[in-house]
Amino acid sequence: MTVTADRLLEFTKAILKSIGCSDTDASQGAEILVSADLRGVDSHGVARLSGYLRLYEKGRLNPTPNIQITHETPSTAVVDGDAGLGLVVGPHAMKIALDKADKVGTGWVAVKNSNHYGIAGYHAMMALERDCIGISLTNASPLVSPTFSKERLLGTNPIAVAIPAKDQPPFVLDMATTTAANGKLEVLQRKNEDAPFGWLADSDGKVITDAHGLKKGGSMLPLGGDRIHGSHKGYGLGALVDILSAVLPGANYGPWVPPFVSFIDPIDEKVGEGLGHFFGAMRIDAFRPADEFKSHMDNWISRFRSAKTTEGHERVLIPGDPEREFTEKRKKEGLQLLPTVVEDLKTLGDKFGVEL
Amino acid sequence: MTVTADRLLEFTKAILKSIGCSDTDASQGAEILVSADLRGVDSHGVARLSGYLRLYEKGRLNPTPNIQITHETPSTAVVDGDAGLGLVVGPHAMKIALDKADKVGTGWVAVKNSNHYGIAGYHAMMALERDCIGISLTNASPLVSPTFSKERLLGTNPIAVAIPAKDQPPFVLDMATTTAANGKLEVLQRKNEDAPFGWLADSDGKVITDAHGLKKGGSMLPLGGDRIHGSHKGYGLGALVDILSAVLPGANYGPWVPPFVSFIDPIDEKVGEGLGHFFGAMRIDAFRPADEFKSHMDNWISRFRSAKTTEGHERVLIPGDPEREFTEKRKKEGLQLLPTVVEDLKTLGDKFGVEL
Repeated sequence: MTVTADRLLEFTKAILKSIGCSDTDASQGAEILVSADLRGVDSHGVARLSGYLRLYEKGRLNPTPNIQITHETPSTAVVDGDAGLGLVVGPHAMKIALDKADKVGTGWVAVKNSNHYGIAGYHAMMALERDCIGISLTNASPLVSPTFSKERLLGTNPIAVAIPAKDQPPFVLDMATTTAANGKLEVLQRKNEDAPFGWLADSDGKVITDAHGLKKGGSMLPLGGDRIHGSHKGYGLGALVDILSAVLPGANYGPWVPPFVSFIDPIDEKVGEGLGHFFGAMRIDAFRPADEFKSHMDNWISRFRSAKTTEGHERVLIPGDPEREFTEKRKKEGLQLLPTVVEDLKTLGDKFGVEL
Repeated sequence: MTVTADRLLEFTKAILKSIGCSDTDASQGAEILVSADLRGVDSHGVARLSGYLRLYEKGRLNPTPNIQITHETPSTAVVDGDAGLGLVVGPHAMKIALDKADKVGTGWVAVKNSNHYGIAGYHAMMALERDCIGISLTNASPLVSPTFSKERLLGTNPIAVAIPAKDQPPFVLDMATTTAANGKLEVLQRKNEDAPFGWLADSDGKVITDAHGLKKGGSMLPLGGDRIHGSHKGYGLGALVDILSAVLPGANYGPWVPPFVSFIDPIDEKVGEGLGHFFGAMRIDAFRPADEFKSHMDNWISRFRSAKTTEGHERVLIPGDPEREFTEKRKKEGLQLLPTVVEDLKTLGDKFGVEL
């Protein structure tokens, strides 16, 4: 089924309103989910809508949160998300970071008591129009085993950084700290195809290619895959994201992170509140004139984009290129939803009296 | 040859003084180099001393720099290193970041016109005694090819982050954004052993195992190794380090970074001044009470350290564990220098009248 982004926005907004979200919050939530579909990160788009609804039904999601700063300094804040949608709490916190950057050069906001916030890149990219560098981190359901371990202790804990350029499109890095994002695995699962060696381990920690391995107690592997190829670095980065997003504000961390995915049972023990995020904003002109910086970014991007390629490849990509190209194409041609996603959305629509 | 750390400190300091460094600067420089040897990062220790001296002899290193802030806001600064030793410029800039954190919660300092600053982790760890999280990034000689490219456009561009704990030792991540650090490659070169598949490519971009491949025009590969295992993420992280360390303050970036290694010729074209670093300091209690945070860090560390291991491994490591254990051992047993390093140091000693 092919739908326009506008139609999907409208539908998603209506569903979020029907569980009690305000008009503004529902718009914001819908915008992030649909932006994921537009950017080609289908796993984090409307396909996740029913997952958020399940959290609401379990009483784990507050549709009318009172999001508050609980502690702050001129350049920092801790935000309590009041168990709201991460899709709403995230942009709220990122705005605080940007306002602090306006005043003292940079702003850094750690968030507790939140839920899944969609694609990390969305929040980082909010900085671009204000000539800031944006940073967005979050922890997530434990699915990843550290190097030398067979326990799922970390989420795919993404790192997103958006950096403005002048005539070139911005540099937008948005990466899971695992070998492969969970979304890519989901694609293989749907097609019943094998996963490449180095993505997954079974419950004994042996590397496997069964794309359904996670459901059988297996785990995802940190970026690097194995020790000899630097998996301790991917593990270290995922750990860093966990600590900044959760130990710093007082959210749950590591294996205590409340799971989003339905095949992991939540545990009773808590070490903090909800899950956590970490946002940063750095005003370019707190370092050098923005125009000068952006001209050099153009030069950086042009040089890398025109680098000599290896055989079989036409060009070198800049972080953000694939997602931007997806967006251009999908804005023009509409979004193709998989039959399972359409069915899922229709079920939601029937339940809340919203037509897809 | 086995020497004590103190003896090596004294020797290194004397050599640095003999090229005109002040007593304080020579002490600081020696401390960073020897700390690398203590931490087991031999490639970045006194083995590099003659490399710094060569830079001095070529007129690329100013032994008496006038290090200055050229622009600042309450939470940021740009520092001009005046072509000084990175080993001196780095700590100077990190102190500015820490002082800003004292005042407004966080401090962020980007540095231009510097030289190689030793191990990234040293600078990040300066934050620990002040109950801050420390961040240290630097760009470096172009040795790494981006995904799909065969050109050397990035350095091994490390990311170091130090986070204090309470009774547990601190969390110290210090990683190159490549599959393997250059130092590990140097070890294989000395032993004439092959490099693992996934570390290196030849000048056509084909993956090779010849550990001497770099000298033949090859390149190192970004963390992830190849596209299917996430090399675009390692490339993205290396690019991020390059942009924050150099495009932000106005240093040379990408292929324009002045090379430290002797087998790459410097280019005449410049896009900035010297090479660049980026430092960050975040005061823990700008987010939550330091004691509370550090207790949770202890809990985080204990949980991960006691995680169930895969077959053949006794324990799960925390970032910083191997380097700390090296330090304990080497402080007790002394430092074993390789014959080539001893020879190198003796040549330096003879030249400047300093006995090893």
